[in-house]
Amino acid sequence: MPAIQFDPAFTGFAERARASFLAQPTMQVLGVSLDRVEPGEVELSMPFSPTLTQQHGFLHGGITASVLDTACGIATLTLMPEDAGILTIEFKVNLLAPGTGSRFRFVGRVRKPGRTVWLAEGDAYSVDENGRERLMATMTATEMTVTGRGDVKG
Amino acid sequence: MPAIQFDPAFTGFAERARASFLAQPTMQVLGVSLDRVEPGEVELSMPFSPTLTQQHGFLHGGITASVLDTACGIATLTLMPEDAGILTIEFKVNLLAPGTGSRFRFVGRVRKPGRTVWLAEGDAYSVDENGRERLMATMTATEMTVTGRGDVKG
Amino acid sequence: MPAIQFDPAFTGFAERARASFLAQPTMQVLGVSLDRVEPGEVELSMPFSPTLTQQHGFLHGGITASVLDTACGIATLTLMPEDAGILTIEFKVNLLAPGTGSRFRFVGRVRKPGRTVWLAEGDAYSVDENGRERLMATMTATEMTVTGRGDVKG
Amino acid sequence: MPAIQFDPAFTGFAERARASFLAQPTMQVLGVSLDRVEPGEVELSMPFSPTLTQQHGFLHGGITASVLDTACGIATLTLMPEDAGILTIEFKVNLLAPGTGSRFRFVGRVRKPGRTVWLAEGDAYSVDENGRERLMATMTATEMTVTGRGDVKG
Repeated sequence: MPAIQFDPAFTGFAERARASFLAQPTMQVLGVSLDRVEPGEVELSMPFSPTLTQQHGFLHGGITASVLDTACGIATLTLMPEDAGILTIEFKVNLLAPGTGSRFRFVGRVRKPGRTVWLAEGDAYSVDENGRERLMATMTATEMTVTGRGDVKG
Repeated sequence: MPAIQFDPAFTGFAERARASFLAQPTMQVLGVSLDRVEPGEVELSMPFSPTLTQQHGFLHGGITASVLDTACGIATLTLMPEDAGILTIEFKVNLLAPGTGSRFRFVGRVRKPGRTVWLAEGDAYSVDENGRERLMATMTATEMTVTGRGDVKG
Repeated sequence: MPAIQFDPAFTGFAERARASFLAQPTMQVLGVSLDRVEPGEVELSMPFSPTLTQQHGFLHGGITASVLDTACGIATLTLMPEDAGILTIEFKVNLLAPGTGSRFRFVGRVRKPGRTVWLAEGDAYSVDENGRERLMATMTATEMTVTGRGDVKG
Repeated sequence: MPAIQFDPAFTGFAERARASFLAQPTMQVLGVSLDRVEPGEVELSMPFSPTLTQQHGFLHGGITASVLDTACGIATLTLMPEDAGILTIEFKVNLLAPGTGSRFRFVGRVRKPGRTVWLAEGDAYSVDENGRERLMATMTATEMTVTGRGDVKG
């Protein structure tokens, strides 16, 4: 996948992205931070927490999916028009390595912009105490532009 | 999809399913309960909580995915041999209706048993204060039987 | 998945479904027939052909996907308004058993109707010479209602 | 997705890849050629044909999936041990632009090697008469190493 340069449709794209992230209580509950916002690409991270694991002590795959979903959604939102809201239609996650390590890094990016329907992709990495990264999971997500619906803004 | 009757490979399947659920701290953090365990099918539920929402105030799609993932995994575990552990290889979630309502109900079931690779399916329903249900999301998940790995039990 | 009764939005739904099927040259190349059309559900079938196999002599998974895609699309079209066209946004296929046998049966059905976005599901069965069926593959597909686009009709 | 350098496990990887491609009658029926084989990545192409379209005259999405499936499978096979066969467990396709144009190009590559389970990704491009390319579809596919099964070789 070659890196693509995108032009945001809205000059306030970064502020809107940060506002959308902060408006998601789930991200606070999971301890996620939004570390980087660029047109069409964002980066998030979270520390390992034993409270967010499954029965083997690995980060729960659904928690990985939650952060990747937000990463894909916010990456897409950076390119949407000012009056648009965003909804996720579907996503698929491939879980590639156990959710171990001291922290996790998540990258979301737009793969194909659209008027109504967008494709975003996300990668999740586990990071050990020495900073070594390992690809842990990937997501493909279909995002939808929503306008004129009072309950879907941002 | 016709209902299929499955024979569990392990008589202690229900106790093991409950133990696996209780061993997932994420489920406690999300306030999920395991309400029903049968061979090849389980049911979970959780109340709506504003702390688990996204930017529109709906239940976060990743949280829905988390509970569906556990539902699919435990449904599969009910049919696995005694010495087996389970890992999720991948899942896809279609988000069909906003995560609103007073509580949510999740059903996971085995669609196709396998020796190594299994297909499970899950449905998530939002339930309003009058008990009316609405299909909110579906999952298809590929599960894998793991044996001989010390870090993957149950 | 409980059977759902759907009301078609267009009384000529069955004729339109058959016309859409016949307008797909790919289905003729693959030797597929449309055997049943009901509101929200259709059934297709094809004989096994050694020309449509992969390197192990099984029916190629992409061919299975092709027929399931058409099954899901036409099932959805049966419920769409008269002036609508349909496009597939995405699909996921789980391949569950080898594509062997003397013929194959495919069922597509609407799982969740929508104004713009629909979820359809499909099952593919291999059928041996004694008529015994085996679940071979499943699909979930997101379909989209398209109006006002001259190149997308039916 | 950064380009990754892979070491093939089997020095005859390119010959085996070509042999596996040629052993798939479906690829001949669809008019596909295998244009490039490298460790972990392959490229295929096919001309547009009106016989492989759907009801709007676009290349059928299932045909796109068929070639992407073969691309992902053969890319994975280039990295497998000599005695291994390959089976596709599941794939998801996102259809991003109409299947128009004079020819189509398909790239399959390994994203995450595994002992048993592999993740491959594929991109499909439509190419117009001036050679301009447009991203038409993407695939993520889970591939499985199969050994000791007489009916699954290569």
